[in-house]
Amino acid sequence: MLRYNAEKLEKWVQGIFQASGFELSESAMGAKVLIAADLRGIDSHGVARLSGYLRLKESNRISTSPHRAIVHETPSTAVVDGDQGLGLVTGEFAMDIAIRKAEICGTGWVSVKNSTHFGIAAFHALHAIPKNMIGIAMTNASPLVTPTFGKERMLGTNPICVAIPGGDYPPIVVDLATSAAANGKLEIAQRTGSPIPEGWVQTAEGASTQDPFALKNGGALLPLGSNRDLGSHKGYGLSAIVDIMSAVLSGANYGPWVPPFVSFLPVLEDCPGEGLGHFFGAIRVDAFRPLPDYQKHISSWISRFKSTQPIRHEQPVIIPGEPEFHEHQNRMKLGIPLHDAVIQDLMILAQKYQLPLPETAV
Amino acid sequence: MLRYNAEKLEKWVQGIFQASGFELSESAMGAKVLIAADLRGIDSHGVARLSGYLRLKESNRISTSPHRAIVHETPSTAVVDGDQGLGLVTGEFAMDIAIRKAEICGTGWVSVKNSTHFGIAAFHALHAIPKNMIGIAMTNASPLVTPTFGKERMLGTNPICVAIPGGDYPPIVVDLATSAAANGKLEIAQRTGSPIPEGWVQTAEGASTQDPFALKNGGALLPLGSNRDLGSHKGYGLSAIVDIMSAVLSGANYGPWVPPFVSFLPVLEDCPGEGLGHFFGAIRVDAFRPLPDYQKHISSWISRFKSTQPIRHEQPVIIPGEPEFHEHQNRMKLGIPLHDAVIQDLMILAQKYQLPLPETAV
Repeated sequence: MLRYNAEKLEKWVQGIFQASGFELSESAMGAKVLIAADLRGIDSHGVARLSGYLRLKESNRISTSPHRAIVHETPSTAVVDGDQGLGLVTGEFAMDIAIRKAEICGTGWVSVKNSTHFGIAAFHALHAIPKNMIGIAMTNASPLVTPTFGKERMLGTNPICVAIPGGDYPPIVVDLATSAAANGKLEIAQRTGSPIPEGWVQTAEGASTQDPFALKNGGALLPLGSNRDLGSHKGYGLSAIVDIMSAVLSGANYGPWVPPFVSFLPVLEDCPGEGLGHFFGAIRVDAFRPLPDYQKHISSWISRFKSTQPIRHEQPVIIPGEPEFHEHQNRMKLGIPLHDAVIQDLMILAQKYQLPLPETAV
Repeated sequence: MLRYNAEKLEKWVQGIFQASGFELSESAMGAKVLIAADLRGIDSHGVARLSGYLRLKESNRISTSPHRAIVHETPSTAVVDGDQGLGLVTGEFAMDIAIRKAEICGTGWVSVKNSTHFGIAAFHALHAIPKNMIGIAMTNASPLVTPTFGKERMLGTNPICVAIPGGDYPPIVVDLATSAAANGKLEIAQRTGSPIPEGWVQTAEGASTQDPFALKNGGALLPLGSNRDLGSHKGYGLSAIVDIMSAVLSGANYGPWVPPFVSFLPVLEDCPGEGLGHFFGAIRVDAFRPLPDYQKHISSWISRFKSTQPIRHEQPVIIPGEPEFHEHQNRMKLGIPLHDAVIQDLMILAQKYQLPLPETAV
């Protein structure tokens, strides 16, 4: 795979956003969030999605110059109307409000309506870290997952991310889809045609399957826990919490009404809300105990968990967020590797907007 | 199984707490929380645990007349020192503070140190419901669960409960251990000697097993997700969040240092904190949108999810908390059924404190 310098690629993505009509500030932040995903190794949410956002813009489902606003608030809470702008940017806007409220109140909590896909949850949650705050980001998403005992797609992969200041270590970043597997993993299996583990997907009739195409053929992703015995009702419950905090609190669409990311799928009629919903939180660590005490104990937590007796000594226990942190350092140095299919996709945009892709990194 | 009237049984439990030296208010609330578990059908956390709490008291690990206090606070947060009192009662104390803060600030968040086991999380979270608030309760617990790739018990079953006002319906109550299975399920399998599903427990060497005694023989419970393919790193991440919010924020013990519930296991030396930790939250619904709007949409959420196409029409999709709600109604009417072993256990206490068990319900 060819590698691209992160900074140059980000400038290029910004240029494409601008050329397609997005305001400068939308374009700059949009590019930053996509590149952040690629840097952390979450390739499914990086520049691979650029053309998807542009197609949504062309179908008038994303605004290029939104007026985001707080429409309701208390000292520790707010509801933001994203005015159909890029969720990538609305996430930043809302997280900043949560942080400002936490500075005054100890914590800040923002529910967002009328938004679109916000990219990787970790980008937004991580904003809290330099302020010595715990950052929380979640979002609902278009329906792919069935509740336990069901065979209908009712919930998105509804991720939860919690970023926790790490003291002497990098931050702990728990970032999880509330489904057993994210759609990206399924797409990889589809490309190679290989069977998937039982517990990721069920067929349209609700049967267990290893067929990577079962989702495309009317099946559904399974909640974290995979089946009743192993706790799929827990994954369903977590996903329900994300949906309700993101959409029922804010006035966005929920459950099966969440608008699709792909522009070729129509938006449902008679939707109960506006756009997609997100939920953000910021928690000042020193709203609970003095920062030095916290830092001492979180460092001890991390060092103790790193020294957990492993099953195989060549695979130690991982602190959540560790692999993505190392990938970020690695890709900052060596560049971002892109799949041929993604490069093809970017080439088409480069041609359309007369903005040649940057040179590959050496 | 014999059934007992809930009100009479609660009075009796209160009497036993008092006879064993607990203050009146500790005894009354302690009894209330245990009976609430039995009423909801969470038999493992009800009166079956009464003798366990009393043994902890006899080993001087629970105080009979604690002075609970706020030791740190901001407008939306507080840290409570539980002074080694019954966690059953400390939970109520802390949740009340969260609710009072939410009344003023929109949300309230309380981390607790120096506590003991708080019973069922749902009891505490449900306090928020009559105030039209979302209630959150979590706690760490003594180590039984291994992180992904590990073979050492590092985390408790660390439950998360979120209770959400249900509009026209009973509240949604998501209440989950962050392990694949709770210890109670394992104990049932041990009694009957039946094999357990793969994915609940691993052996001392870290191998997959169906042996219900593997945990007792040095193995460990597995995080929600069961194995790496099905997302055990997600269960591990959720459990880590509970541990950190409950203990690293408050100054309680965390990870492998959390003190055991059973009095025959010693408390570790060189503990980094005080007692067990909990975390509570209260979120005023109308801190986000007017209550009638919220109620309309949460009712629509619930009714839409109840009508999810089921795999088998005789097993419809369940709203989280629905079975426990019905069990509560049922047991209020018919009485609480108790296992013979539990009745034996209570008989011993009845004899010891000269307080005969109430008549069984007819």
